[in-house]
Amino acid sequence: PGVPRGRGCAGSREVVPTCERYAVRRLPFARLADGDVAFFERLMPGRVVTGEEEVKPFNVDWLKSVRGCSQLVLKPRTTAEVSQVLRYCHERNLAVNPQGGNTGLVGGSVPVFDEIILSTALMNQIVSFDRVSGILVCQAGCVLERLNEYLEEQGFIMPLDLGAKGSCHIGGNVATNAGGLRLLRYGSLRGTVLGLEVVLADGSALDCLASLRKDNTGYDLKQLFIGSEGTLGVITAVSILCPQKPKAVNLAFLGCQSFAKVLETFTTCRAMLAEILSAYEFMDEKCMELVERHLKLSSPVTDSPFYVLIETSGSNSTHDEEKLNKFLEQAMASGLVTDGTVATDDKKIKAKPLGLNGSLIPQVLWGLRERITEALTHEGYVYKYDISLPVGKLYDLVTDMRARLGQSAKNVVGYGHLGDGNLHLNITAESYSHSLLDAIEPFVYEWTARCSGSISAEHGLGFKKKQFIQYSKPREAVALMQQFKAMLDPKGILNPYKTLPSAP
Amino acid sequence: PGVPRGRGCAGSREVVPTCERYAVRRLPFARLADGDVAFFERLMPGRVVTGEEEVKPFNVDWLKSVRGCSQLVLKPRTTAEVSQVLRYCHERNLAVNPQGGNTGLVGGSVPVFDEIILSTALMNQIVSFDRVSGILVCQAGCVLERLNEYLEEQGFIMPLDLGAKGSCHIGGNVATNAGGLRLLRYGSLRGTVLGLEVVLADGSALDCLASLRKDNTGYDLKQLFIGSEGTLGVITAVSILCPQKPKAVNLAFLGCQSFAKVLETFTTCRAMLAEILSAYEFMDEKCMELVERHLKLSSPVTDSPFYVLIETSGSNSTHDEEKLNKFLEQAMASGLVTDGTVATDDKKIKAKPLGLNGSLIPQVLWGLRERITEALTHEGYVYKYDISLPVGKLYDLVTDMRARLGQSAKNVVGYGHLGDGNLHLNITAESYSHSLLDAIEPFVYEWTARCSGSISAEHGLGFKKKQFIQYSKPREAVALMQQFKAMLDPKGILNPYKTLPSAP
Repeated sequence: PGVPRGRGCAGSREVVPTCERYAVRRLPFARLADGDVAFFERLMPGRVVTGEEEVKPFNVDWLKSVRGCSQLVLKPRTTAEVSQVLRYCHERNLAVNPQGGNTGLVGGSVPVFDEIILSTALMNQIVSFDRVSGILVCQAGCVLERLNEYLEEQGFIMPLDLGAKGSCHIGGNVATNAGGLRLLRYGSLRGTVLGLEVVLADGSALDCLASLRKDNTGYDLKQLFIGSEGTLGVITAVSILCPQKPKAVNLAFLGCQSFAKVLETFTTCRAMLAEILSAYEFMDEKCMELVERHLKLSSPVTDSPFYVLIETSGSNSTHDEEKLNKFLEQAMASGLVTDGTVATDDKKIKAKPLGLNGSLIPQVLWGLRERITEALTHEGYVYKYDISLPVGKLYDLVTDMRARLGQSAKNVVGYGHLGDGNLHLNITAESYSHSLLDAIEPFVYEWTARCSGSISAEHGLGFKKKQFIQYSKPREAVALMQQFKAMLDPKGILNPYKTLPSAP
Repeated sequence: PGVPRGRGCAGSREVVPTCERYAVRRLPFARLADGDVAFFERLMPGRVVTGEEEVKPFNVDWLKSVRGCSQLVLKPRTTAEVSQVLRYCHERNLAVNPQGGNTGLVGGSVPVFDEIILSTALMNQIVSFDRVSGILVCQAGCVLERLNEYLEEQGFIMPLDLGAKGSCHIGGNVATNAGGLRLLRYGSLRGTVLGLEVVLADGSALDCLASLRKDNTGYDLKQLFIGSEGTLGVITAVSILCPQKPKAVNLAFLGCQSFAKVLETFTTCRAMLAEILSAYEFMDEKCMELVERHLKLSSPVTDSPFYVLIETSGSNSTHDEEKLNKFLEQAMASGLVTDGTVATDDKKIKAKPLGLNGSLIPQVLWGLRERITEALTHEGYVYKYDISLPVGKLYDLVTDMRARLGQSAKNVVGYGHLGDGNLHLNITAESYSHSLLDAIEPFVYEWTARCSGSISAEHGLGFKKKQFIQYSKPREAVALMQQFKAMLDPKGILNPYKTLPSAP
């Protein structure tokens, strides 16, 4: 995650069209004709967007790193409309780019050429919520933060949370198998998504929208669509298991003198906080510097090479604070942590023990971590890497990359979900340069592959990473994926140029 | 779950061959020839089982409800051997029945005709365990209980637990997407299984054995094999995320006067025990009667229409007991619960507050619930149904069924994982009868479908339930499953006659 809540695009420079920058060749799809637009106008009057300026925000990604040249955005309200659109496009051989909140970071959410953009923006209805089971059913276009607000009123929360929550759609979250800040506690969408409704490439609807915690009747088809980035079908509705809203939330923001101490702090804290630990995030001093400089935020602790953010979520504030204080006591006493501050969610701001400053509310501390992505965009062009690694080796990649790039990069920073073994490695430069990219890639992928890591932990492959899939998946697996794609979308009209590598 | 730990088969009556009882027609696979046996003998000398008596235990399921007539069991030790076996069988068009601990309850684990049995019994090596991440990698034939013992020594546990733990193999657990007793807390295998190694029907090995918590590089192929009951590939190794061993485990066994109170107790307990709740099981008085009669166990609480078993698992025994006691206090005071007893895992047996009898160890209380399946087998033939329903309607199905069957059934009992909305409905009779079956089915499936439930929550479809898939899955979904099967196993040699309905 990393896109701040509804803050819109970064910078305002003009973006080079993707097909030019990457020299992609357009596949032989049909070209949009006047008759097509007329058909869609009849199908969904007033919800067909044309005109270069109106379509532009849908053509450019949030990072302003890729740009398509679609001429048409469609905004269906119902699954039946999505079906009709796809049936038509399938017949006409028109390519389609499904789009949610357009907050993706790998160029998966915008067209590469003139694909028709199928936006879920108006599919924002909550279908049902069961307070006994905690199961929510809603349309794909519901904004994550809205869903969370709705659930909080009923004593529940969404099982996922990410920086982009103010704009991202739940359908897009599922299509990209979004990870985020609560994965450590509530697990991945593969476990919490209970059902999906999906429209396939030919327009047929697949109703797997079960609202059951357990269902072992046949193959679990919905899993194939989770994380398929809109290339196998368009998710139109989601059924998802939501945890109870924790009664007590505590945050600790700590300074560590080395990455080894960050790791040891993690092991200690996992043992002592156990079932109430809900996040363990880290960032390096460079991240803090950028957040302070560009967003005018200030660090709540003395300068340290590394910072750790720990969140606990539980049902009993007395018990939770006792656990947290005991952990902090030990972490300070054993020198794992050199400075720290805590914050609680229960409105009344309290002074904290251990000489820790306790005058902050959780949002302030979370902001330091969640707004790193935003701060980075102020630095110019950002090369983003989202890597899974054995947790002990997580920061070595940042150190090695920094040494390798030297002065040719403006910044090389590392932060991420340490508890999940997930590093966000970001490299910034004044502007995009092929030579810097060549210095980074494939080095970063080869490094990751040597550690059996994943070259995309949670962001997906989209357009920008698809050619590197072989660093994390064997040839046979990629071949099988291509077979699935050919079976479900024989004409290849769904989000073409994405996820799977193009033929050599 | 429900098969007791390594207690072997129930009863000793002769089992009617499946092909006779169900009038199935054999598909045109090749028949085993002497040359085939000779080939396998060369491939894995001493690990090829022939001879009617030796093969018999592999031909009959634990429930003694189905029986195949295989003449050959193969016991490979390595993935390479599994590959060679399947490559050979694929070429020769010989059908194969992958088998783990043979504890399945739907006839999925034994042959229907003369399929070659491919047993994972000797594939029982642990490959690696990482104490920082909690990720275990092991071969498919490891017995669940052995794995759990191994992990406990290192301060971890398996994320699943079921009655059959003493015999079932982890590969079989994954192939059937086993649920069990810890699902409420640690989620399903779809979230905890991080990687799989699978041998496909043609003998090619698919290495998706990642040991990463997060990996979004392409479609998640492994999900298709989880729950596919050996019909799409043979799982040879598993990578799985294991939780820390809880430091404190508490049990409460309670009596409730009505199912409505069972439900209200659940809502109350989920709110008050929250993050430490690890199981919420229920059983009716008929279950207790059978467990007492056949297994000579005795109820620890006064007779009640319903019993509830609650488990908490946490990191701080003082905090956990405080939470549990507070909950019990409220449950007793408000009349939700009329009697109860508690037990803790910390060896020294303590007297408990609230006048509750506290002289029991957890195993005794768990035994009452886990051994119901075993007690039922003493009653004669058991018609087993494993249903997911909206939790409020869970017991109505038992009541309706009891009224419908009247004297024609010996017992109609209900128990299960209430916290997951999962009912185990069991009906017993002296022996199998077509007419009783006709009174039960399709009534039970129609009833379930009307509530949008699942006709198989965790047991799978196997042989016995495959014709009923349409009660829980739409036609389009079943057609798509058939396409996947045809793609991955074009000759249909893997576990034929299972999971998907045969052509009408």
